[in-house]
Amino acid sequence: MSKLATPAIIVNFKVYREVEGPKAVSVALACQKVAEESGVSVAVCPPMVELSRVAAAVNIPVLAQHVDARKPGSNTGWITPEMIASAGAAGTLLNHSEHRLEITDLKNSVAACRLNGLISVVCADSAETSGAVAFFKPDFIAVEPPELIGGDISVTSARPEVVSDAVHAVHRVDANIPVLCGAGVKTGKDIKAALGLGAKGVLLASGVVKATDVAKALSDLVSGI
Amino acid sequence: MSKLATPAIIVNFKVYREVEGPKAVSVALACQKVAEESGVSVAVCPPMVELSRVAAAVNIPVLAQHVDARKPGSNTGWITPEMIASAGAAGTLLNHSEHRLEITDLKNSVAACRLNGLISVVCADSAETSGAVAFFKPDFIAVEPPELIGGDISVTSARPEVVSDAVHAVHRVDANIPVLCGAGVKTGKDIKAALGLGAKGVLLASGVVKATDVAKALSDLVSGI
Amino acid sequence: MSKLATPAIIVNFKVYREVEGPKAVSVALACQKVAEESGVSVAVCPPMVELSRVAAAVNIPVLAQHVDARKPGSNTGWITPEMIASAGAAGTLLNHSEHRLEITDLKNSVAACRLNGLISVVCADSAETSGAVAFFKPDFIAVEPPELIGGDISVTSARPEVVSDAVHAVHRVDANIPVLCGAGVKTGKDIKAALGLGAKGVLLASGVVKATDVAKALSDLVSGI
Amino acid sequence: MSKLATPAIIVNFKVYREVEGPKAVSVALACQKVAEESGVSVAVCPPMVELSRVAAAVNIPVLAQHVDARKPGSNTGWITPEMIASAGAAGTLLNHSEHRLEITDLKNSVAACRLNGLISVVCADSAETSGAVAFFKPDFIAVEPPELIGGDISVTSARPEVVSDAVHAVHRVDANIPVLCGAGVKTGKDIKAALGLGAKGVLLASGVVKATDVAKALSDLVSGI
Repeated sequence: MSKLATPAIIVNFKVYREVEGPKAVSVALACQKVAEESGVSVAVCPPMVELSRVAAAVNIPVLAQHVDARKPGSNTGWITPEMIASAGAAGTLLNHSEHRLEITDLKNSVAACRLNGLISVVCADSAETSGAVAFFKPDFIAVEPPELIGGDISVTSARPEVVSDAVHAVHRVDANIPVLCGAGVKTGKDIKAALGLGAKGVLLASGVVKATDVAKALSDLVSGI
Repeated sequence: MSKLATPAIIVNFKVYREVEGPKAVSVALACQKVAEESGVSVAVCPPMVELSRVAAAVNIPVLAQHVDARKPGSNTGWITPEMIASAGAAGTLLNHSEHRLEITDLKNSVAACRLNGLISVVCADSAETSGAVAFFKPDFIAVEPPELIGGDISVTSARPEVVSDAVHAVHRVDANIPVLCGAGVKTGKDIKAALGLGAKGVLLASGVVKATDVAKALSDLVSGI
Repeated sequence: MSKLATPAIIVNFKVYREVEGPKAVSVALACQKVAEESGVSVAVCPPMVELSRVAAAVNIPVLAQHVDARKPGSNTGWITPEMIASAGAAGTLLNHSEHRLEITDLKNSVAACRLNGLISVVCADSAETSGAVAFFKPDFIAVEPPELIGGDISVTSARPEVVSDAVHAVHRVDANIPVLCGAGVKTGKDIKAALGLGAKGVLLASGVVKATDVAKALSDLVSGI
Repeated sequence: MSKLATPAIIVNFKVYREVEGPKAVSVALACQKVAEESGVSVAVCPPMVELSRVAAAVNIPVLAQHVDARKPGSNTGWITPEMIASAGAAGTLLNHSEHRLEITDLKNSVAACRLNGLISVVCADSAETSGAVAFFKPDFIAVEPPELIGGDISVTSARPEVVSDAVHAVHRVDANIPVLCGAGVKTGKDIKAALGLGAKGVLLASGVVKATDVAKALSDLVSGI
């Protein structure tokens, strides 16, 4: 398993048309190129059905977008931590704003990731929720205020305190858990500002994945580090 | 897209430990070998995160185990019909007893499969539900009485009428939709009996996937056709 | 248990502010007044937490808005058919567009209503879904195309075929199940047209419940019968 | 609204057959009698459809068993905080082990309770989850280890540390939030032990509600305070 160094840039492919089928590999390779050239730690989150294919094609960390609170066995169509580990993933996002988990399932899923050697990146919608999930000891917490997701506003200009408040709330519980900025990051300048507020990286999506030139878009962002 | 000829044998890999990672490909290849040697139509349903890898490795039809009622775009961790089509899948199971769908989502998902050129295999827990889902015009309906799933009882000895009743209910709505026997099939004799009751194939899981020798287990079953 | 005669008008209170607390009783009494004066069969669906209070206050049929697929016992916060029957309700809506059920849960809930002497009114979003749920033998099926719910368009002017198609689909399965028009009914003229298309009544909400004068609004509608 | 004094005993009626229909009022009155005779603070959680009836019949605090993360309006069959407040409830349980909430919905529901003047009692399955939900500032946190719910083992003999650990975790975040012992309480001695471990009360169910003599069963328990 490849650990994820900080500062880290995690690129969430979602289920955009731009990453259907083999295109998921192309986008992942473009991200890898930027990682290699810049020396910055970059991880990719391909669509679930492309997980094993992408994991086989790149050598940067590959994360699942989600894991269900299910065990191996008779769970048709559900995704277990064991399954994503054996697919070659290094970890997973959990509780993304588009895929929320019940609080006890979230606690148990973070523990199941740990048992399976998987990095857990738990998303949270606010400073309070960031502090709350810190009790479950995930590897990363990504704060993503819903009103900034997919929009044009930058978190660091519009609501810089959400990042510093999340860092503060998390560190009240566990000073060792790095916080990522999970929404409202559009430019290299935003990344720089996020790091200045105490974030140890960012979680990105459309700005990179839907760009005409993925490598160029990611390079521009990485320049902020 | 490869169409699925009848009589058809669909092997559901679920998320058994026996099909984690590259083992999903091995089990799929064993199924393909039996298909080729016997001339019987066999399809496989690998774990979701292995879908593209298995689809690239075999030339028998590969089905997803489930599709979410979601569209391309910002749906982190969900599975769209478009995504499974571009992964190389020929179709998908829908509404498996371990992964039920809301009725309107089921209707819309069958329609979305049709638009994406995907075979839809809708599971139903009874003759009544089989008749109901026939209104949505899926390509196949698999009747799987919950009390027989994963157990040791054969549907054709214990409750043969569930198959013939399901066929009757479905054909009241649409005489062209083939019905599969989705539970309680343990032996080639069971398959033969199911076909005699009007089924056009079977949906299998543990009996094949957890066998020490997958090809042998499937061969024994196929001999009933 | 009071049976629900046809043509029937069912008034869904939803969780509008206009029916919070004792106001639910007032609105129900206004509906009862119109029922008594007009001789038309009217049923009311108060908010869940007002069910027993409203049932004790009126003598027209009171329906729950929803029932969960749960059994008596350790199911904190869920609503069982047994509970609504003992609260004095005559029946329940099921599968409303704002509260969809998994298809097997829907089948089982209709059966549980029957066992508990409760009228089941199953909502469906289309003619196909109406036909599908007919297999479960509910007492009524209300077709409510989502695009008409809460809007200003009348189903009978905009899409009259959805009513007649639903009646046709339902009667292919069971000629005895009455179909209600569940959306796009704004005036007495709409009700008349719906009945002309084969509906045996209507399911209404905001037009009555949010009216300044509930009795007057309902009287105007009832005049179409 | 009646505030809930500590030490508090909260009696969860669940959807037991013993509290269907008017029986919910009888059980609530028996609890009120014990509260009056003993001077101990007792609250009751009737089935959702009996909420307004029970609230009108007793003068001890009545809590809902659950509230959905929904707003007033078009939310057929769902339960809003506004609706339970206007039904006369003093508050609600949230996130009971039989009715878990997504973490963000839980945060928002606690806030909605506060806005509507409702007491929020958030259930948690462990010390970690208890600490986590403290970030949302509910009025009470009830720790209920799933393995003790409904069983014969007493939390204070089998796992006394779960209570003291929960108290410790909660007070790291907010020293003013009282913790209740939510499972494994069978006798007055258990209550006494729970209070000794730092709990400010208990959440009970079957031991009281299913007793032949509810008042006697509750009196025995109350004697531990």
